[in-house]
Amino acid sequence: MTEDEIVASLRSVLSSKIGDDAAVIGDQVITTDMLVEGVDFTADLPLRFVARKSLAVNLSDVAAMGARPTHAVAAVAVRREDQPRLEAFFRALREAADEYGVEIVGGDLSSAALTIINITAVGRIETRPLLRSGAKPGDRIYVSRTLGASAAGLSLLQRGWTVGERGDVKSPSASLSFELRELGASAIRRHIDPAAESDLGPLLASIAEVTSCIDISDGLSTDLNRLCAASGCGALIERERLPIFPDLLGAAPQLGLRASELVLHGGEEYALLFTSSLRESEMSERVGRPVYAIGRIRREPGMTLMVDGIESELEPRGFDHFAVS
Amino acid sequence: MTEDEIVASLRSVLSSKIGDDAAVIGDQVITTDMLVEGVDFTADLPLRFVARKSLAVNLSDVAAMGARPTHAVAAVAVRREDQPRLEAFFRALREAADEYGVEIVGGDLSSAALTIINITAVGRIETRPLLRSGAKPGDRIYVSRTLGASAAGLSLLQRGWTVGERGDVKSPSASLSFELRELGASAIRRHIDPAAESDLGPLLASIAEVTSCIDISDGLSTDLNRLCAASGCGALIERERLPIFPDLLGAAPQLGLRASELVLHGGEEYALLFTSSLRESEMSERVGRPVYAIGRIRREPGMTLMVDGIESELEPRGFDHFAVS
Repeated sequence: MTEDEIVASLRSVLSSKIGDDAAVIGDQVITTDMLVEGVDFTADLPLRFVARKSLAVNLSDVAAMGARPTHAVAAVAVRREDQPRLEAFFRALREAADEYGVEIVGGDLSSAALTIINITAVGRIETRPLLRSGAKPGDRIYVSRTLGASAAGLSLLQRGWTVGERGDVKSPSASLSFELRELGASAIRRHIDPAAESDLGPLLASIAEVTSCIDISDGLSTDLNRLCAASGCGALIERERLPIFPDLLGAAPQLGLRASELVLHGGEEYALLFTSSLRESEMSERVGRPVYAIGRIRREPGMTLMVDGIESELEPRGFDHFAVS
Repeated sequence: MTEDEIVASLRSVLSSKIGDDAAVIGDQVITTDMLVEGVDFTADLPLRFVARKSLAVNLSDVAAMGARPTHAVAAVAVRREDQPRLEAFFRALREAADEYGVEIVGGDLSSAALTIINITAVGRIETRPLLRSGAKPGDRIYVSRTLGASAAGLSLLQRGWTVGERGDVKSPSASLSFELRELGASAIRRHIDPAAESDLGPLLASIAEVTSCIDISDGLSTDLNRLCAASGCGALIERERLPIFPDLLGAAPQLGLRASELVLHGGEEYALLFTSSLRESEMSERVGRPVYAIGRIRREPGMTLMVDGIESELEPRGFDHFAVS
């Protein structure tokens, strides 16, 4: 069973509200996300970044619903010997919450054999909820910022790059150029300290021509596939239009990375993926910053990638928590 | 540092809303609770009971605030090989939620090296929130039902009693009488499948003479100590008035248990502990069922236990997640 099949089953067992980025309850949305050591982060990542990321991933879900985050609760389990670090953890969480204008109103503390953070965030719907299911054939498909850096950062961390308590990044090779080290450090920071699109989400909801939205948590291909499935349509993506993290395309080969794989399938971006009839220049003007049209919604199901004018099938190959690997 | 000291520190770092059973946000309360395998339950406990208990402990916090539960979200991590059991887990969760009139509106799924359940529950304040901080000298101290069974059940589970998928309890000794086996099974069921006081909580909030409330999650002595600290007062408990789970007093010695320890310090009862100027007969009539006055709030700080007319200090010796043992 894939994660999406499990979610479909839960939707039938529990509630039809399940299956979007967050559940809509009156004029609120609510979402929950658990980060587990050894699965979502490694034991050597400073707890400060675990705190910041655990909040950001939840606020990204709130943003994808077009809601503004208001408050959150945090349940945390740490090893007994990590208990003295809890206050620093919560200070980092408070700092991140302040940046987003969110109040952490409650929590739960446990000891466990590994570190687990579970945040539940609540947001207010200011205009209307944005759902995954509203995309229409002919709509342009947008991403809110450049892609590829988070997966690149993850890959570098898996190959020996390290992060210190203050976020200072070290590469295992002394022979890398300054530019490559800087690029690697930027990518790693994007991975360990992602920003949720908390202002853009409510803004998109206020634009009537925006038809659907999801956040890119498991990879563009996988999350676009979810948006298409919910909307009952397909998609055509033009590879030339995909916005790539600055300098990543040129530097990827030297870092042993494949840029197009990172951009198409890399997870934990927390950019918003949304659809609208508006053209790119008008959409960017309406939101007051560049956003990127990368393709079109089609009536026919399935995802297609166009490279140099040639179409081929685009498979969802992003992250699946329950895929048999 | 004790758990209460950590909570006090978090209150200063995060929000003054922290420190009651749930946080009050407008006319809502929100609370979160994480259950971790190996800490809060053992790996051999059927997942169905983990599901039911994880909901009940959150709804108990909602009840202690005098609120009526409305919806909840559930984040669950299981081992990859347990994935086929997820649907049964969520069916049990749905069944329990239906019993309380609560909708499970969202969730998150992860794989991990151990099972973790985190539920966040939201409730509606119908009249006013009940806080820990309102107890007044002279108030009677109440518990909502008999105590001792949950800790007795835990003790029996630790000594080889087992629970099957359908909740059938087996004792390791064939020589126990039918009555003792039945009592043991009742105690274990109280431990693995506790009921939250979801109707009583909002009812207490509607009675103006109820001055404070907390649920007994870590033990009467520890939770009463929290209520006294929040209210700036002390308490006198009369041991003769403590309501003991039926037949537990007589059977405890044969089961190797000390009834008064279980009643005073045993955790995970999820009875409500509350205070009111009303006398026992009137309070019971107002709520339409027996509740038990066990002592009085005093002006002087500290807790006192009266046994056969003799007073001695009552120490908070319930469960502390971060106590150095």
